[in-house]
Amino acid sequence: MALVSVQECALAAQMALEAAGVGAEAARQQTDLLLDAELRGVPSHGFLRLERIIARIGNGAADPVTRGVHSWRGDSFLSVDGQQGLGPVVARHAADVAAERARQSGIAVAAISHNNHIGMLAWYAEAIAEAGLVSIILTTSEALVHPFGGGKALLGTNPIAIGVPTDTGPFVIDLATSLVSMGEIHDHAHRGAALPQGWALDADGQPTTDADAAKRGAIAPFGAAKGYALGLAFELLVTALTGAALGRDVTGTLDAEHLSNKGDVFILIDPQSGQGAALSAYLETIRQTPPAAGFEQVLIPGERGRARKAARLATGIELADPVWTTMQRLRDAAISGSAAS
Amino acid sequence: MALVSVQECALAAQMALEAAGVGAEAARQQTDLLLDAELRGVPSHGFLRLERIIARIGNGAADPVTRGVHSWRGDSFLSVDGQQGLGPVVARHAADVAAERARQSGIAVAAISHNNHIGMLAWYAEAIAEAGLVSIILTTSEALVHPFGGGKALLGTNPIAIGVPTDTGPFVIDLATSLVSMGEIHDHAHRGAALPQGWALDADGQPTTDADAAKRGAIAPFGAAKGYALGLAFELLVTALTGAALGRDVTGTLDAEHLSNKGDVFILIDPQSGQGAALSAYLETIRQTPPAAGFEQVLIPGERGRARKAARLATGIELADPVWTTMQRLRDAAISGSAAS
Repeated sequence: MALVSVQECALAAQMALEAAGVGAEAARQQTDLLLDAELRGVPSHGFLRLERIIARIGNGAADPVTRGVHSWRGDSFLSVDGQQGLGPVVARHAADVAAERARQSGIAVAAISHNNHIGMLAWYAEAIAEAGLVSIILTTSEALVHPFGGGKALLGTNPIAIGVPTDTGPFVIDLATSLVSMGEIHDHAHRGAALPQGWALDADGQPTTDADAAKRGAIAPFGAAKGYALGLAFELLVTALTGAALGRDVTGTLDAEHLSNKGDVFILIDPQSGQGAALSAYLETIRQTPPAAGFEQVLIPGERGRARKAARLATGIELADPVWTTMQRLRDAAISGSAAS
Repeated sequence: MALVSVQECALAAQMALEAAGVGAEAARQQTDLLLDAELRGVPSHGFLRLERIIARIGNGAADPVTRGVHSWRGDSFLSVDGQQGLGPVVARHAADVAAERARQSGIAVAAISHNNHIGMLAWYAEAIAEAGLVSIILTTSEALVHPFGGGKALLGTNPIAIGVPTDTGPFVIDLATSLVSMGEIHDHAHRGAALPQGWALDADGQPTTDADAAKRGAIAPFGAAKGYALGLAFELLVTALTGAALGRDVTGTLDAEHLSNKGDVFILIDPQSGQGAALSAYLETIRQTPPAAGFEQVLIPGERGRARKAARLATGIELADPVWTTMQRLRDAAISGSAAS
């Protein structure tokens, strides 16, 4: 692992993206999203993704410039053709425009198609809650998850984020409807570690603890039949609103070549009820409740990540050596490219 | 168990409600909701609830007449004071009005406070999907669920329903964020059966398999930390929009005396994307996928209940003897009351 200051790794990402044709503000957004994932302890959504984003631009699978084309399907329904833009650039712009409408009409939705991977959803939910709005955010992905009782990957990891403003800051959840992430499977494979029972099936639909076999198979939904039901409902809902591809037809968030055809949905609501103090008091009651046997404390979702972020902003980020080596290479190529031009 | 025809038990409920001062149309809605739960195999939300609804009217905790007072907090945000009306009467009226707005603006939300128990959420989601709209429905409840890692009930069972129209009919999920319902705990207690490990804690926060101890304790969230996160987010979101009470301050859905202070949220979206055929084809792919070891088939959420409903419409409903005895008593009292007046 390499301990790198926030400034140094952010600058490397920013330079690499700008060298690939991304404008300064868009590069700042994409960098901030990846950085935030590293800071909160979600490296699967961090700088590991940078090289692929740049490769996708080079391959014509990502447009470094567009912010998407907006059309209103109703006063509160913003339909966005992402035009294969960068995930956070298209999504933040759509969310900002929909947020403005939500402040007027109470609720608005942005339904986004043809957009690249939008990364860690908590990044959006937190910013939207900071701005005083409730959010429900959904995005779909390649089929990696098997239905409850089924042997084959047919569902995306289909995460949901929910953000709610409180008087003591944003409350944010961000969770995949898979039991674990494909990143965790890859991590076990990399370390040669066995998977816990129940995490995954192999390519033949048989339970496996072999991480390499699981990579070619399917991850379990979280929470058995209920998590499967949620993941399936999110996949259908997102496609109903965005026209996104479904199941095994989804491409473009795990490779460098294919166009992205999943969908993103942002539902934004102006709560207007003045409940911020009551919500904070309730969260404090939960925080202070005696833990059950075997637990040290009762956690509020998102708070561990926020504490990690505060610490890492001070100390710097531990990056896996290959990730930091790649970032330095991309940065150095950007410097010599700009010197050459 | 008593096998009763749909007509006979619906008529009994209708007459009992009308005798309590409920108008014919409102009584029909409340009866249809309870009947639908019986038909789909969710007796905890069926006619078992009838006596308490009528007792609440008698005690002044439920208003048999009101449909709630509507005010628009924005063009797409309908705020509803339920005025302690009957759950489905207030909620269906709010959802109908919000649905009309969603057809114009693309999305609308109804945020309902001071409404009685709205019962099985699938009933609403199915009707809304039949009418061509996507729905996300949330409602809160008394604190029955412990936080992940916590020893005390601090969260409602906080269910979610999602409905999506497809070309082959509504897709509907309806699930509590608790691992099981309090009804299932009561059922085990009634039968003297031990609970499976992991379902519940006793009043001291210790794991228990004693159903009677669990009734005074807390149910586990489904899906460990993720299900807890969802249940907590739903509780906060509903209160942010409705001003509902939180956690242990919630009253009025499990007793006959207290006013109801939980909240209900209906988010309605006009999908407009013409994806109905694609959604149906995707569901068929999942239905046809080979089952995993130990499973006979891959189920689509909601379809078992729908098949059960079709069968019971033909054969009649099996009601627990005390439930049917109570219904007959309420019906007979309604008849003699009306003869006396």
